[in-house]
Amino acid sequence: MALARNLTNFHLIRACPGSKARAGELVTPHGIVPTPVFLPVGSQATVKTLTPEELEEIGIPMLLANTYHLYLRPGISIIEKVGGLHRFMAWDGALLTDSGGYQIFSLATLRRVTDEGVIFRSHIDGSQHFITPELAIQFQEALGADIIMVLDECPASDAAFEKVERAMLRTNQWAARCQESHKRGHQALYAIVQGGIFPELRHKSAEYLTSLGFAGYAIGGLSLGEPKEVTWRITEETVALLPEAKPRYLMGVGSPEDIIEAVARGIDVFDSALPTRVARNGALFTRRGRVNIGNSVFKKMEEPVDASCYCYTCNTFSAAYLHHLFSCDELLAYRLATIHNLSFITKLMHEARAAILNNTFTSFKDGFLKDYKPTDEQVRLEQKQRWLKARKNV
Amino acid sequence: MALARNLTNFHLIRACPGSKARAGELVTPHGIVPTPVFLPVGSQATVKTLTPEELEEIGIPMLLANTYHLYLRPGISIIEKVGGLHRFMAWDGALLTDSGGYQIFSLATLRRVTDEGVIFRSHIDGSQHFITPELAIQFQEALGADIIMVLDECPASDAAFEKVERAMLRTNQWAARCQESHKRGHQALYAIVQGGIFPELRHKSAEYLTSLGFAGYAIGGLSLGEPKEVTWRITEETVALLPEAKPRYLMGVGSPEDIIEAVARGIDVFDSALPTRVARNGALFTRRGRVNIGNSVFKKMEEPVDASCYCYTCNTFSAAYLHHLFSCDELLAYRLATIHNLSFITKLMHEARAAILNNTFTSFKDGFLKDYKPTDEQVRLEQKQRWLKARKNV
Repeated sequence: MALARNLTNFHLIRACPGSKARAGELVTPHGIVPTPVFLPVGSQATVKTLTPEELEEIGIPMLLANTYHLYLRPGISIIEKVGGLHRFMAWDGALLTDSGGYQIFSLATLRRVTDEGVIFRSHIDGSQHFITPELAIQFQEALGADIIMVLDECPASDAAFEKVERAMLRTNQWAARCQESHKRGHQALYAIVQGGIFPELRHKSAEYLTSLGFAGYAIGGLSLGEPKEVTWRITEETVALLPEAKPRYLMGVGSPEDIIEAVARGIDVFDSALPTRVARNGALFTRRGRVNIGNSVFKKMEEPVDASCYCYTCNTFSAAYLHHLFSCDELLAYRLATIHNLSFITKLMHEARAAILNNTFTSFKDGFLKDYKPTDEQVRLEQKQRWLKARKNV
Repeated sequence: MALARNLTNFHLIRACPGSKARAGELVTPHGIVPTPVFLPVGSQATVKTLTPEELEEIGIPMLLANTYHLYLRPGISIIEKVGGLHRFMAWDGALLTDSGGYQIFSLATLRRVTDEGVIFRSHIDGSQHFITPELAIQFQEALGADIIMVLDECPASDAAFEKVERAMLRTNQWAARCQESHKRGHQALYAIVQGGIFPELRHKSAEYLTSLGFAGYAIGGLSLGEPKEVTWRITEETVALLPEAKPRYLMGVGSPEDIIEAVARGIDVFDSALPTRVARNGALFTRRGRVNIGNSVFKKMEEPVDASCYCYTCNTFSAAYLHHLFSCDELLAYRLATIHNLSFITKLMHEARAAILNNTFTSFKDGFLKDYKPTDEQVRLEQKQRWLKARKNV
């Protein structure tokens, strides 16, 4: 138990005077990760379409993989046999595994949640499984990621107070059991603050978890379809309850504009499938906002999609070529768009960090948000709901 | 007209004493291509899943792209505007464009073939188009490939003698018109010998086309579902009618064992979608034959699929990882398998060429065919028929 508590793997380097933003670094057995940092999602031990070399070339220091997915396919024991997750996916950089709590409560068919653990059916083949906080840690220790997460219960964003409270109290108890069973000191264990959109529940969750002392604190249960102003209010209130000296991880965020908003509110770590998922749908990030490569304006464009971008895709191919690949459903399209979006986010994180270090973050943020036209709020909520619904039907 | 006739772009370096096999080189404006050579298929200006850099790393000297596909999408004028096909797809190596004849007669809905040209409907949107031999050349000159092909009429493998004869005679006349309209001397124009499975028609075709004098000669209308022994008999009889000093290109072949058989019969150039298509279905080449990565034997295999292979895929990932990616339908799977199969074929061509140069080709061939267990003939014919049928239904 003492291992996780004593692990110091975060150095706070500078705090922004005009906001809550901070620059730091996560020290991991697989390298130093400058923060704020965005983790591309490789749920099934692959960031869709890309090789490890490409991720490295883009400048990605850390990836996220998912214990729920890897437990079902190929199975934890196979990854362990092949030498652990780093070796399995040939990734030498830092890795974080999510415990799978969110996926069990969103993807799988739930059978029964008790204080002991959760019985669920696989979303792939309907097979029945039982996971406890102890097993979630055991699996993540076998996978061997640098940062691992407690098992949490994550209710829907519109769940009633009582349901959210029960889930939060259970998540707290599970966090204690995860900490108790965590043995491998080179892996940092992060707790997950739950409590939905209810400040008093967030308060109880944070108070209890920080009293246990974890290597880092995640904020779960946000960005699940609630309005943006709620997301930010709860983020602010939760961050205020977390220790300065520990990293803060806002799970499932997100879009370029949300990341910058959250950095300003004191978040250090992000993960989201959004940049890679929208890339495969032909939505490419630029400093003016997302553009859709399927738009006829790109059909004859000799220039790259984003003339200010230095990624492999923009350096090598015209917008006309990308438009062509997408209109033919060519597999290379998804790959080139993924490279672009991850390069965009990575560069954005570098710039945000540099601005914090230079005491210019507030003007950087204002400038970025002024130019960047986010997807319309109504469209965004509809897309999110469609996506959450589609996930349930997988 | 004199341009194509006088273009010398093939050097015959060595002929095998024990077979018809030969080693040579194609001199092109985009590099010297050692022969025998296999051209990966990039119909839509992309070898599915791969970047130009990966193709170069594999050691691919020349690609094939398809005029029919590029004419429909994105349109010839767009590629011309962006600076030609090499620039459009960012490929600096050699390129060959097929005229699209085969695709018009297999993919499109035919409206009418006359001596003047062919009216067809696009397989994508049903739009109507008219192509003549002169337009086929004009399009290919605009695309700017190093080797271009005459427009040919390609009947089905089971077509009656009279139909095949008519198509062959028309192809001959179209070849003469293509030659007449071909203006750009840096592009080598190849003729296509037709005549189906009828030796006397092949004879008439070859006699006429060689009398016109082309930079190279392709054999079309084979490997379309006819039995293997017919393929080889017709190949042998046709090769015997072609000039020693010119390259010979067997269109649409193929599998590793067929390529080696055809090299022994005097073929210099090959193209086929087979290695890349079967890769995306999880069939990987090894010296013992194709293996299916979905087989449970690979589920826990720490070693690469092919321990004797030095490709990126086998160098980097276990068979267990590849098996996992395929069972999850992960897009990276198709890419890693494509890299492996193209590396296998490329290495095979290098070895065949080295054996010809060392006067050991016959024993190389016998050794390769002894170890390599081809797909069962019955299975092969069924697969081929299914595939041809599926193409008709696109």
